[in-house]
Amino acid sequence: MIMLFTVQVKVMPLKDLLDPQGKAVLGGLQNLGLSSISDVRIGKHIDLQIEAAAKEAAFQMASNAAKKLLANPVMEVFEISIN
Amino acid sequence: MIMLFTVQVKVMPLKDLLDPQGKAVLGGLQNLGLSSISDVRIGKHIDLQIEAAAKEAAFQMASNAAKKLLANPVMEVFEISIN
Repeated sequence: MIMLFTVQVKVMPLKDLLDPQGKAVLGGLQNLGLSSISDVRIGKHIDLQIEAAAKEAAFQMASNAAKKLLANPVMEVFEISIN
Repeated sequence: MIMLFTVQVKVMPLKDLLDPQGKAVLGGLQNLGLSSISDVRIGKHIDLQIEAAAKEAAFQMASNAAKKLLANPVMEVFEISIN
């Protein structure tokens, strides 16, 4: 039986890499007076709807998608979760 | 005592709104042969480091940041989680 899985893929810039978008947002937040926020990192959140027979197959498919298209391994790490 | 909390903010395009970036990625995935992926929606994932005395205060601060800067309420919804 084919089921529909909602798979979440989180793609974040690598820890050791500068995140200029995050730094800009951090500056903006501090200008707004939210000075207790000390760091911001910004990545992508991707929701996939995947038709598969089992959770493992859906996970595999999402992992494939992340490796081939969604994440750039030189600059990003990804994390997959299925509820 | 002030502690450092890592707060995750997920910002996604509203359900009823067209997500052109997601549609483009869906097309790309199907061209790569991943045809069992039937829908893609792309939003932002933001990690905040917040200094606060309690989890509730950190949550409040993140909610403030999301409302004021991180999410555009006309086009996006946000979700906050603290582990």
